[in-house]
Amino acid sequence: MKEIDQIRNSGGEIQLFESFTGGLLAPESEGKNPWKYKFTWNPRNVVLAGRGTPVMFIQENKYKYIPYHRLFRRTEKIDIENYGRFEGYANRDSLKYRSIYGLTDIPTIYRGTLRRPGFGSAWDAFVQIGCTDDSYILKGSEEMSNRDFINSFLAYNPHDSVELKLMHYLKLDQDSDVIEKLKWLDIFDANQKPGLKNATPAQMLECILMKKWKLTPDDRDMIVMWHKFGYKINNELHGREAFMVLEGNEPPYTAMAKSVGYPVAIAAKMILNGVIRTEGIQLPVTKDIYQPILDELKTLGIAFRIKETEYNGY
Amino acid sequence: MKEIDQIRNSGGEIQLFESFTGGLLAPESEGKNPWKYKFTWNPRNVVLAGRGTPVMFIQENKYKYIPYHRLFRRTEKIDIENYGRFEGYANRDSLKYRSIYGLTDIPTIYRGTLRRPGFGSAWDAFVQIGCTDDSYILKGSEEMSNRDFINSFLAYNPHDSVELKLMHYLKLDQDSDVIEKLKWLDIFDANQKPGLKNATPAQMLECILMKKWKLTPDDRDMIVMWHKFGYKINNELHGREAFMVLEGNEPPYTAMAKSVGYPVAIAAKMILNGVIRTEGIQLPVTKDIYQPILDELKTLGIAFRIKETEYNGY
Repeated sequence: MKEIDQIRNSGGEIQLFESFTGGLLAPESEGKNPWKYKFTWNPRNVVLAGRGTPVMFIQENKYKYIPYHRLFRRTEKIDIENYGRFEGYANRDSLKYRSIYGLTDIPTIYRGTLRRPGFGSAWDAFVQIGCTDDSYILKGSEEMSNRDFINSFLAYNPHDSVELKLMHYLKLDQDSDVIEKLKWLDIFDANQKPGLKNATPAQMLECILMKKWKLTPDDRDMIVMWHKFGYKINNELHGREAFMVLEGNEPPYTAMAKSVGYPVAIAAKMILNGVIRTEGIQLPVTKDIYQPILDELKTLGIAFRIKETEYNGY
Repeated sequence: MKEIDQIRNSGGEIQLFESFTGGLLAPESEGKNPWKYKFTWNPRNVVLAGRGTPVMFIQENKYKYIPYHRLFRRTEKIDIENYGRFEGYANRDSLKYRSIYGLTDIPTIYRGTLRRPGFGSAWDAFVQIGCTDDSYILKGSEEMSNRDFINSFLAYNPHDSVELKLMHYLKLDQDSDVIEKLKWLDIFDANQKPGLKNATPAQMLECILMKKWKLTPDDRDMIVMWHKFGYKINNELHGREAFMVLEGNEPPYTAMAKSVGYPVAIAAKMILNGVIRTEGIQLPVTKDIYQPILDELKTLGIAFRIKETEYNGY
């Protein structure tokens, strides 16, 4: 919001706002994990990400819609200095943020989630076979092994392996990165059993993922935020990027905990000290609230870097 | 139900029951329509077919689940004497029919819908891009042309055509049957406008389809029902098929109207004449109800043909 206000105060008319955030692993903790990802946020929300309301955004004044089963294959690549490449998939409804940010007539607004490249196409395998569904109960879920679980989404055949059926169904090569990622999660293991009674597919999947995607005491997480602005001054187009990378300490002192917790704590302190006097439920989109919070976050090592760029549209 | 009772009364233990029904066009009315299909049933239900609850069935005692976005590509081929080849996709919940038919422990039960081959993979194009969604309102739907509508599901690009973006997105060859079917529906037409206010994608699609899929006075429809049974007598496996094809007269005297209306009319007459004396809401699964109805349907030209076959499992 600070950048939006600054651009406006310098006479700029905002044409484009893209905003991506990811809760990820710090590079040194990615190790041999082919997903380069672990849960640093509510696991259930990660499994259900994108389900429910369809994705909608606006690009060059054209409304765009993405159904859930296509979401994880419509990613953008984003490079961040010193941290390499990421991919972003769209968050559900970017349109409602137009009024929140006071950008009612903006031609392009897009909010997304960052992962390391390759995450989306591997996660898409779960989406495609249907095992992120949370709307029905699997018969006999308590007795299902990981392998049974995956097999329940594949056609019956008494001879073919679950692996082959999956690869054929999703047109995956045997040596594909997607298969490597799936195998690493032990989803084909006939000896592991989530053991959940009356579970939905999404609950079973979450349970399987927890075995491999739970932070260990050695893991360090990382928050990446990346905002891209396009704006017009005197009919000339300009670009600006604002990004922030924060690495965490040992769990539970994660970057996720800090970046979510500090702003709330600072705001609470400001209310108690009488610095914030606005009543009722407020979004931190006005300068009197966001500026002192950003100032104090800077003293805690959380600060955005700003870079003027060329205008780079859609 | 009659076949189920007969197999049981002759000492057979039912192992498999597959049941497919389709409301289609009579062969002479298929003409140059590449879909070989028009609406002979509630158009809205056809557009929304398979949405909502996921598909579930059981095959050789293994529960199987198909998500909506895969449904129209997991079809079976079915050949019917004198009428050629059809394809069937699964109906939503086949499992609940186990108790209705008294087949609680049956290893395989599967209910489906029949179309002509190629329908499923072309319909899947609509499913894949997301235009059968009925859960949200398209912004500015009233002003959208058919082409705008399709384009709203495709990535923004100021140069590429809607046709090319769609083909690339869905990995379709330019000369594919799917593209032929889509073009025949005028979905790329920039001059046709459904003109619906606050419409969902599914409502827009229905409106576009109505232009081409509405029965004309010259069209004749056709109902196809095909049941396959597998059963065991003294540990020996047997198969049986029961099928019925009914062609309609000029609309509204369609095969759909006859096959849905006659049984209800006959049942009403039987109630009025005191032949059916059971009270309350009844399913026609008991012989005292179905036998006289089937007998009278025969006099109206609606009769199943029965064929003993080899056992032919999954």
